[in-house]
Amino acid sequence: MQDVAIIGVGQTAFSRKCGVSVRELCFDAFKEAMEGLDITTDDIDASITCSAPEYDKQRTPSGLISEYLELTPKPAFYVETVCSSSTTGLRVAWSMIKAGLHKVVAVIGFQKMSELTSREVAERMGRGADIIWESPFGITMPSGYGMYARAHMATYGTTEEQLARIRVKNSHYGSLNPKATYRKALSLEDVLASDPVAQPLKVFDCCANADGASCIIMASGDVAKSVSKIPVWIIGLGAATDTMTMSGRKTLTGLRCSQEAARQAYEMAGMGPQDIDVAEVHDCFTIAEMMAYEDLGFAKAGEGPRLIEEKQTYADGKMPINVDGGLLSKGHPIGATGGSQIRTIVRQLREEATEAQVKDAEVGLVHNIGGVGQYGNVTILRR
Amino acid sequence: MQDVAIIGVGQTAFSRKCGVSVRELCFDAFKEAMEGLDITTDDIDASITCSAPEYDKQRTPSGLISEYLELTPKPAFYVETVCSSSTTGLRVAWSMIKAGLHKVVAVIGFQKMSELTSREVAERMGRGADIIWESPFGITMPSGYGMYARAHMATYGTTEEQLARIRVKNSHYGSLNPKATYRKALSLEDVLASDPVAQPLKVFDCCANADGASCIIMASGDVAKSVSKIPVWIIGLGAATDTMTMSGRKTLTGLRCSQEAARQAYEMAGMGPQDIDVAEVHDCFTIAEMMAYEDLGFAKAGEGPRLIEEKQTYADGKMPINVDGGLLSKGHPIGATGGSQIRTIVRQLREEATEAQVKDAEVGLVHNIGGVGQYGNVTILRR
Repeated sequence: MQDVAIIGVGQTAFSRKCGVSVRELCFDAFKEAMEGLDITTDDIDASITCSAPEYDKQRTPSGLISEYLELTPKPAFYVETVCSSSTTGLRVAWSMIKAGLHKVVAVIGFQKMSELTSREVAERMGRGADIIWESPFGITMPSGYGMYARAHMATYGTTEEQLARIRVKNSHYGSLNPKATYRKALSLEDVLASDPVAQPLKVFDCCANADGASCIIMASGDVAKSVSKIPVWIIGLGAATDTMTMSGRKTLTGLRCSQEAARQAYEMAGMGPQDIDVAEVHDCFTIAEMMAYEDLGFAKAGEGPRLIEEKQTYADGKMPINVDGGLLSKGHPIGATGGSQIRTIVRQLREEATEAQVKDAEVGLVHNIGGVGQYGNVTILRR
Repeated sequence: MQDVAIIGVGQTAFSRKCGVSVRELCFDAFKEAMEGLDITTDDIDASITCSAPEYDKQRTPSGLISEYLELTPKPAFYVETVCSSSTTGLRVAWSMIKAGLHKVVAVIGFQKMSELTSREVAERMGRGADIIWESPFGITMPSGYGMYARAHMATYGTTEEQLARIRVKNSHYGSLNPKATYRKALSLEDVLASDPVAQPLKVFDCCANADGASCIIMASGDVAKSVSKIPVWIIGLGAATDTMTMSGRKTLTGLRCSQEAARQAYEMAGMGPQDIDVAEVHDCFTIAEMMAYEDLGFAKAGEGPRLIEEKQTYADGKMPINVDGGLLSKGHPIGATGGSQIRTIVRQLREEATEAQVKDAEVGLVHNIGGVGQYGNVTILRR
């Protein structure tokens, strides 16, 4: 069977209010992904559209986006695991190419959240939890991650200041990223003084909803070598779930879906955490990045705080993480986020990340989570 | 690469108001699909959940259903092409098994539409068309298919009576199907006398919304042979799209997405329409079944009406079609429909369709359409 490579990546700027339609957002991301490739839309065999439903009015957007990108009559469909939808799309595209069904597939992630009020968004996020047993009692994303933070503090003595240092790092890199929603570097004092959201999480511990789109063009090995200058190979894939209910979880100090997805991805790649040169992890909240350090094996359980204290996750540290600003700075347009993370790692491996290039990066990892830890995808890429 | 087989199929009864939750519907379909198989939930490597969003309150149902079926922490995700979602799920599962990523995958289709009023359902169906250029002007499913019917009549002289004969046939078989919503055999007079919906289509030319779930268990060849008595092999797959906008279509006398998907599926199977022993086609309206006769090559363009006039599509005819009652009798719980069609053909090929068994059926075809002809899937199965 042929290897599978990423040959193009693109994303729009992420913003709090894009002012254009979903189809236009997707077009912009697709256009950037196609730049420099020796193919046309005729060469794309299928498209996979990834987002979370109900944030904008258009239902079944795959057909619409396919028509707007001039991909009709090629197959198009929709894949969803909320915040990790576009890395699930990547996993599906990989399978279709590996199986020999398609040669070139476009994975398009998007979300337009600014049509709704904050209250409407919160109501929808609530219905992303179990609507019989949990969402009626007030579970939302910040309250769920607030519980993780409390559990990590109670078990390992983690402090609010250590969590805040993650935002300080990510805001520094966000200030260098022209596509980020938030481009102001924040101090430790700024983060610690921000208003409480779901204690111990404060405003600056949380990412923000956003509008945006991303695109990943994937191809079989033979096509990749002939149409792109620097193919980036998919060498590890892992996917797992945990219970829909928070109350069903065995522990709240880490995400089982991350641990299991990482195990699979490392096994498939024949590698371990020590082989990763640069990573993107799902920092929807500061505590989420802290748990990812441990769940992905970059630190032992309880030792994540040391990684950030020692600045090891900065671009010049031992294990550079989220050096594009992460979700915390870029904003989190749900379906577009995974594709944006993939774009960052692909640009790092191609040495195109001029803002914050990690030296000699050959192997990168992307960790993308859906919901309050319901879905986890880990993808390992190599130049 | 290994061949891929269907080893189990199940569905709930379809009904206008199920009275149970989505998770319970899915459990019932899953339970029937697992019956008689020498595997447990531990052997299922991943689940794919298929439905159209916004009809019930629960968002991102994949995690929920996975937990309820005790499949956690296995990967779970959601696939959607509206009415053809579960055959798109089958295509994705096929790819994952063929690629060697998984050995056994469960494809679970469902829809619960009875939580909403008819008006709310119609509003959502409208937003399944292009919300900028078409749905504001009143495009809904019946009006779209009404235009197809008018075009077929104008071009080929097709009559309302010929369309009605399709419902007469399907209602006959629906009366034999214990899982159908409508089990009354209708006369030609009944159909012709029913109230107009979108002329020339009348109430009995249209299928009805329903609640229900379906499940397909798929496996790689080696597993299939060891755990199931009669594996049914997937030998042809086709998928295509047409424009989201009705106004973008080149013709209204047939569906380009059906024609293109059929071409691909026949090519992959190395077969033609003459090799098919029994078929399920997407009869959301009587005109849809009529067009399918021609789009799938069972009749030449314009000669579909003769097929039904001559009763060739009855169980003892040359080309038996929808001998389970079709969507017209069973009801159409959007995400569950494709899986129900697959179940019917699998039961036919296993000679388990006691209600209306087609003699010596070895090769079957399933044709499943999404939207007003936006998405088309054709699947060919062999005993």
